[in-house]
Amino acid sequence: MVVKSQIKFIKSLQQKKHRLATGLFVAEGMKMVSELLQTSIPAQEIYTTNPEFLQNHSVKSELVSEAELKRMSGLKSPNKVLAVFRIPEAAPPAFRDWTLLLDGVKDPGNMGTIIRLCDWFGISELLCSEDTVDCYNPKVLQATMGSIARVNIVYTDLEKAIIEAKLPVYGAFMEGENVYSTAWPEKGLLVMGNESHGISEKIKMVLNGKVSIPQFGRKSAESLNVATATAILLNEIRRPGA
Amino acid sequence: MVVKSQIKFIKSLQQKKHRLATGLFVAEGMKMVSELLQTSIPAQEIYTTNPEFLQNHSVKSELVSEAELKRMSGLKSPNKVLAVFRIPEAAPPAFRDWTLLLDGVKDPGNMGTIIRLCDWFGISELLCSEDTVDCYNPKVLQATMGSIARVNIVYTDLEKAIIEAKLPVYGAFMEGENVYSTAWPEKGLLVMGNESHGISEKIKMVLNGKVSIPQFGRKSAESLNVATATAILLNEIRRPGA
Repeated sequence: MVVKSQIKFIKSLQQKKHRLATGLFVAEGMKMVSELLQTSIPAQEIYTTNPEFLQNHSVKSELVSEAELKRMSGLKSPNKVLAVFRIPEAAPPAFRDWTLLLDGVKDPGNMGTIIRLCDWFGISELLCSEDTVDCYNPKVLQATMGSIARVNIVYTDLEKAIIEAKLPVYGAFMEGENVYSTAWPEKGLLVMGNESHGISEKIKMVLNGKVSIPQFGRKSAESLNVATATAILLNEIRRPGA
Repeated sequence: MVVKSQIKFIKSLQQKKHRLATGLFVAEGMKMVSELLQTSIPAQEIYTTNPEFLQNHSVKSELVSEAELKRMSGLKSPNKVLAVFRIPEAAPPAFRDWTLLLDGVKDPGNMGTIIRLCDWFGISELLCSEDTVDCYNPKVLQATMGSIARVNIVYTDLEKAIIEAKLPVYGAFMEGENVYSTAWPEKGLLVMGNESHGISEKIKMVLNGKVSIPQFGRKSAESLNVATATAILLNEIRRPGA
């Protein structure tokens, strides 16, 4: 039996302000929860309708009814398990390698894809402006899966961070230097902007270079989605001969 | 006044079988409809709550109430305009350049992103297996925007098409040849597989090469999303020095 106040508390973690206030977030579904349990992110409590799931973990767990799970879930069709995790403390950025900066990325799917890309390309630090979507948003989690545990995600004043990093800073633009002729330094910062408005004026002022992915064919295409542009730029930075 | 049977007919176009049977599809929202009206896709009829929208087009248009629009719409919050378009007839593939093949891609968002990528990278032919998500699915349209009019999308038997093309065929795999050392021919076919199961056994048999995007860092990342992998591979094929 889960008490009403507990259900209300768990449900409240769907909102960013409650996640920030408590330092907790919720993950749902067998695959997602199982994957996060294998990472360094500390689990606080598991609620499940599946008795088998109880036995496999040392985390405090509770068997709940489907109706109870539905009431605490943020999903239309909850999937057997919901777990509360502690948000890991972000380490201050060390700038030992390339660092990715997000300036106002809003779409949870894009954010999730970008975190997975960082994991794939060995980018261990992701700096986000305060107005970038919260990475513990349930929709972001759904798109990152376990990758979120392997990237140090820091919400911070990007301008200040850029100045402190003392590294070359590149921004992605529709009209910039051809990315295929960019001589990438050994390490630096790459900034990706908002889906509609791109990189903010303030950050434009502190960039060292503007890069663009050339368009082929009829040049009629509108623009690349920010997540696919990030994929291409990280690949360009990491590929040999870059 | 829109009659009941008309509303029912328009609503039915949310389903693939009715789109196939009638050769029609529905697009919604001011941005989407305006963009499609500028392409070669023939518009059949426009329904709008906005009198201004009526004047700007030679297409048969009807002013409707918000309640009527809501009843014909597939969206929770319809956005002022809905239009019925004719599905353009796909031309038989000519294989004059690189062609992208999708083998069972299911997610509408991925499909939409991939069509936009084709447009960006000047890939004018996209061949899809019959079990790939329908490109006139409303969610695909939302992700492609006008790009759908600039790519010849053909649903076909991929195995037969590959044999007929008589071109080198590459497939994307988790374990294949390093994509950075692949010597791409001037033209060929690139196959991307299903989100969970990859490329089907039948298609694997007719490939000439398997390519992989190398993983950097801790090698713990699960996999790249099919749309981001497509972005990276098309960039590799198109970039100079490829």
